[in-house]
Amino acid sequence: MKGYGMRCIGSPAWLEKDIPVCGPLDAIIQPTMVAVCSSDTHILHGGFGEHKDLILGHEAVGIVAEVGSMVRGFRPGDYVVVPCSTPDWLSPTIQSTPSNAHDRGLMQSFKFIGSKDGIFAERFHVNQADANLALLPDGVTPEQALMTVDMMSTGYHGVELAEIGFGDTVVVIGIGPVGLMALSGAAIRGAGRIIAVGTRKPCVEAAVYYGATDIISYKAGDIADQVLEMTKGGADKVIIAGGSAETFTQAVRMTREMGTVANVNFFDHSETLGFPAMLWGVGMANKDIRGGFCPGGARRIQKMLALIQAGRVDPARIISHKLHGFTKLPEAVELMDSKSPELIKPIVYFDDLA
Amino acid sequence: MKGYGMRCIGSPAWLEKDIPVCGPLDAIIQPTMVAVCSSDTHILHGGFGEHKDLILGHEAVGIVAEVGSMVRGFRPGDYVVVPCSTPDWLSPTIQSTPSNAHDRGLMQSFKFIGSKDGIFAERFHVNQADANLALLPDGVTPEQALMTVDMMSTGYHGVELAEIGFGDTVVVIGIGPVGLMALSGAAIRGAGRIIAVGTRKPCVEAAVYYGATDIISYKAGDIADQVLEMTKGGADKVIIAGGSAETFTQAVRMTREMGTVANVNFFDHSETLGFPAMLWGVGMANKDIRGGFCPGGARRIQKMLALIQAGRVDPARIISHKLHGFTKLPEAVELMDSKSPELIKPIVYFDDLA
Amino acid sequence: MKGYGMRCIGSPAWLEKDIPVCGPLDAIIQPTMVAVCSSDTHILHGGFGEHKDLILGHEAVGIVAEVGSMVRGFRPGDYVVVPCSTPDWLSPTIQSTPSNAHDRGLMQSFKFIGSKDGIFAERFHVNQADANLALLPDGVTPEQALMTVDMMSTGYHGVELAEIGFGDTVVVIGIGPVGLMALSGAAIRGAGRIIAVGTRKPCVEAAVYYGATDIISYKAGDIADQVLEMTKGGADKVIIAGGSAETFTQAVRMTREMGTVANVNFFDHSETLGFPAMLWGVGMANKDIRGGFCPGGARRIQKMLALIQAGRVDPARIISHKLHGFTKLPEAVELMDSKSPELIKPIVYFDDLA
Amino acid sequence: MKGYGMRCIGSPAWLEKDIPVCGPLDAIIQPTMVAVCSSDTHILHGGFGEHKDLILGHEAVGIVAEVGSMVRGFRPGDYVVVPCSTPDWLSPTIQSTPSNAHDRGLMQSFKFIGSKDGIFAERFHVNQADANLALLPDGVTPEQALMTVDMMSTGYHGVELAEIGFGDTVVVIGIGPVGLMALSGAAIRGAGRIIAVGTRKPCVEAAVYYGATDIISYKAGDIADQVLEMTKGGADKVIIAGGSAETFTQAVRMTREMGTVANVNFFDHSETLGFPAMLWGVGMANKDIRGGFCPGGARRIQKMLALIQAGRVDPARIISHKLHGFTKLPEAVELMDSKSPELIKPIVYFDDLA
Repeated sequence: MKGYGMRCIGSPAWLEKDIPVCGPLDAIIQPTMVAVCSSDTHILHGGFGEHKDLILGHEAVGIVAEVGSMVRGFRPGDYVVVPCSTPDWLSPTIQSTPSNAHDRGLMQSFKFIGSKDGIFAERFHVNQADANLALLPDGVTPEQALMTVDMMSTGYHGVELAEIGFGDTVVVIGIGPVGLMALSGAAIRGAGRIIAVGTRKPCVEAAVYYGATDIISYKAGDIADQVLEMTKGGADKVIIAGGSAETFTQAVRMTREMGTVANVNFFDHSETLGFPAMLWGVGMANKDIRGGFCPGGARRIQKMLALIQAGRVDPARIISHKLHGFTKLPEAVELMDSKSPELIKPIVYFDDLA
Repeated sequence: MKGYGMRCIGSPAWLEKDIPVCGPLDAIIQPTMVAVCSSDTHILHGGFGEHKDLILGHEAVGIVAEVGSMVRGFRPGDYVVVPCSTPDWLSPTIQSTPSNAHDRGLMQSFKFIGSKDGIFAERFHVNQADANLALLPDGVTPEQALMTVDMMSTGYHGVELAEIGFGDTVVVIGIGPVGLMALSGAAIRGAGRIIAVGTRKPCVEAAVYYGATDIISYKAGDIADQVLEMTKGGADKVIIAGGSAETFTQAVRMTREMGTVANVNFFDHSETLGFPAMLWGVGMANKDIRGGFCPGGARRIQKMLALIQAGRVDPARIISHKLHGFTKLPEAVELMDSKSPELIKPIVYFDDLA
Repeated sequence: MKGYGMRCIGSPAWLEKDIPVCGPLDAIIQPTMVAVCSSDTHILHGGFGEHKDLILGHEAVGIVAEVGSMVRGFRPGDYVVVPCSTPDWLSPTIQSTPSNAHDRGLMQSFKFIGSKDGIFAERFHVNQADANLALLPDGVTPEQALMTVDMMSTGYHGVELAEIGFGDTVVVIGIGPVGLMALSGAAIRGAGRIIAVGTRKPCVEAAVYYGATDIISYKAGDIADQVLEMTKGGADKVIIAGGSAETFTQAVRMTREMGTVANVNFFDHSETLGFPAMLWGVGMANKDIRGGFCPGGARRIQKMLALIQAGRVDPARIISHKLHGFTKLPEAVELMDSKSPELIKPIVYFDDLA
Repeated sequence: MKGYGMRCIGSPAWLEKDIPVCGPLDAIIQPTMVAVCSSDTHILHGGFGEHKDLILGHEAVGIVAEVGSMVRGFRPGDYVVVPCSTPDWLSPTIQSTPSNAHDRGLMQSFKFIGSKDGIFAERFHVNQADANLALLPDGVTPEQALMTVDMMSTGYHGVELAEIGFGDTVVVIGIGPVGLMALSGAAIRGAGRIIAVGTRKPCVEAAVYYGATDIISYKAGDIADQVLEMTKGGADKVIIAGGSAETFTQAVRMTREMGTVANVNFFDHSETLGFPAMLWGVGMANKDIRGGFCPGGARRIQKMLALIQAGRVDPARIISHKLHGFTKLPEAVELMDSKSPELIKPIVYFDDLA
């Protein structure tokens, strides 16, 4: 089969691979629609270390092509939503923990990138289908479902980490697709004022759509200064969904005593994250600093889908570009790589494979 | 001064009283707008035991008339929002607890009814003004603010007790004013499907406005049966905002394993609450049963007000009747007492006292 | 193979059965030491409904006899500790929930009793071995390990449900083996005063050993009256580890506002649990009522074992009777059934099967 | 009256001051026994900025000399325990928050150092006596009580921030008096293995007494390396109770995915705290980083005292030096300043003032 990915760091390429083998607990999926994520281009450029002949992609919905002998809940032909994080639920490490993203170590539940080929292919493999797949439910479009598997689930993890209380003032730093989803999640999690940090026009418009009450820009001065002034002493909760080590320092600074910094941004592995001790009350400020990876599994995605079914949120509003055809994958990856000002999130319909 | 309340159980009356004395930490408020609550008529009919010559009412906004010598944050003339629950913050009992409603014992923070005259008067007293009053902020109407002091704060306490997760299926039993507020709170706390239980037309319309996805009625059969069928096994969270001991049993029954029943309903003091052990998995079902009284204090109300300022919710949508004039208090109380089909929440403007 | 259990309700019997079949994810265990639980006699007498030709028992440690083809972490010959609750970790129902005891419905993770033969046999079956077995670690005796699989894990679940804070006053009602373990868990979870309710001499002695500061008895009057007087208004947390519907009512009564009732007792399925509304502040008291079944899985038991390794607790102190020989099972079951005054917990060594 | 403190940075001195004025809500205390804290010498050397003519000290028990007109719960002659952190409970900032240490801003509840004279004096002032004082209860010695007001309350705050679960592996970095208390708190909060980091002999002995299972030393190599090897991948929870910015980095490194770093150490205000992004999973590791100041108030101290009454812990074990006489204050401060190898915690009896 064909797949699109990387020959080596810096070299995107079409790859020819065998159709993956389906274990007894697993499923093979034929994707119908995929999205490109900045993690894909991050890997392509070496952000997760050396990789060779790897099919990229981890956001997909599709049709079940094959199931293993022990799978009970799915059959070929089912239209399924595939979480980007698919834990090994038989690993005791994730039992009774608030996150399931680290089944056998750091981010090891992120199998599409960590340990096997991704979903930019004619077929892809899902481990433990019963525990990791969700049926596309009535009342949810495939496009909406596609936005749950990473963008919404990751953004909402930021909201969960932030432990927002009714009426809290929340800052969302970075309003790319994950930040926008975090923002939408904060709005339906009880936040009062939501200050979004960003500048690109389509993103700003989407931020207002999802519930931002204020928009501030890096261009108007230090963002921590702006937040401290607007909030008279700091925000209750700050969600980082984009930026660099400098952003991290600013986030700590703009958070008030007893507040929380919640990170869902991939920092560069060469960075050092830090802050002057004074910004953390020399250790005494009761400012929590948290950060985590997208939780996975069937139930997680079912809960996201339930929000869409109930009309609480429409994550498809972040889709800015729709490309038709499996062959458009290189164009979609290039779009994400170049991050044009109009881009929020590109998706690709595999309608030529049906 | 004049006040409206009860001569004794069953006898509503205008009463003549001295203006309350302002202690060093306290404030005296001139109400500008008040709401009538079913608790008021409940007391009138003896629901909280014997009371004589008591001014009723506990939902008000108004103007500060006088402050004590130790009050720092308020001055005469300030327009303030007054929580129905005004704890004694110097009582160690409420330190570091999740609720502050029981400062010196059960519901003792509910001072307007428990230990002194209420707010249906030309002037009323507020203990510990700095800790218990909130300024009416920009972007919030007095009517909206008035709905926060009990209805919204109580309803949202139900939501907090229910510990709703993103996408949870929530039932709200009873869609009077508190139930409607609970429903609105569930919708902005991350609930997916929300099943409202009620029948009166204006309440049903308001329930849809606030985010109900389904409406069921007692008239169509046992409500637990209906929920169990709709949800295939039970709701994640059930909020009780109205009903009797039978309702309590139904709530336990319609909640799934690992779910929560959250009560903000006043049951009758002569009732016994219970359920067959089987409905609780003979003790093993991990169904939490919780119930509590409206949290109080300035910060609580500030958080509610912040939600309104941000446009997350408009609690004034529950106001069904607006009466003008201090002298209309008997009519308003009578409205609440007779619970006509069109009634949700009546308020009274004291515009003749200005 | 031989196993001991019930022919039908009321008829204990030796049964002849095939050795269970080992699925790809599973293991077959040869028990070396087992304990009898009151649940076993409860089933025998019909407490969980109709059962025929069922091998009883759910508390065992033993030697791995066989593993399935997909098992990675265990090999024949390993000495393992077997949780009484062995969830199906591939069921999405338990993903991201605080309990895992209800994998496909109420208590369905309790497979030894719910859906297959138990462990009073020459061999028994464990589903999903990698996720559900723990190796017997250094520094823990088999006897201690045996006490973790139900008694300690269940008792500690009561402690977890009670959400004890440092210095809280805790009541433990019932000081049989589960209650004693709950008591030991409360003592190492930060409880201050611990009031144990019980009368039998060996249990009272063990309660003092595990950290009870006060012992009260049913014989000296209503236990709620006693607790209310001793605590001047109620305990912070009450753990129910024995008793009837009346006990439940007493527990609610003896808990103070903002406190918690935590149940790990099996009530009789014919009982109705309830309380006068006044004892729950007519719904307003912020008294949580919780109850649940023993969490399962490898990690749970590893954490219990870690406490023993560190010397925090010795659960083997509750073993009152040690019988030697597989053939002594009937005697052990009879001991549990007759509940002699000297009994706390009987165990049986299968040393004649080695 | 006389008091001991600092003339200016670097100059300890006896000071002559007026007896403090008692406001209506306040109390004046005659200390009977005080302890010296490293914070005292930290201030003396300029660690909290410029201070002139300031009486030092914030750990005391004593006799009530005077109460304000509105104080209800205390009378002259009462023997009281005085929390080092005495919040202004009328400040809405601390309502409904998990910490009360920041009443009007960062650490503002720490009034003895932040805004007025301390307790090394013949008399000292306590704000809001009803909310901030606790009676010395039966079964607790004054020495034990004295150890609760900062050492135990601060150490136990570290334990609370760490959110220890049953059986967790916990590292305590620094085993001075606060670290030892944190260690004792971890042991009675359900920790399994506890690895203490320290070298001084009396501290190591006390660490073993309080429940350490392992002791490691800075002298044997990088402490993070040691912990990572001992725990095969990192500790569940790490409490920092001493050290520098380097320690902070090590703590992040030695914590496993889904673990928590909990800080109760005062870092130097000139330091920058940080870590390579890789140690935090480039933001994805779900490692929480928390740090806070000692919670205050009556109830907090009552809970600590309840632990002592129940025999769960004896904090007086950390007292290494007992000096007799008000006039010994300079010697005690000098002891703390020079940190001799035998020192853990010095206290001074004011027996010459009685």
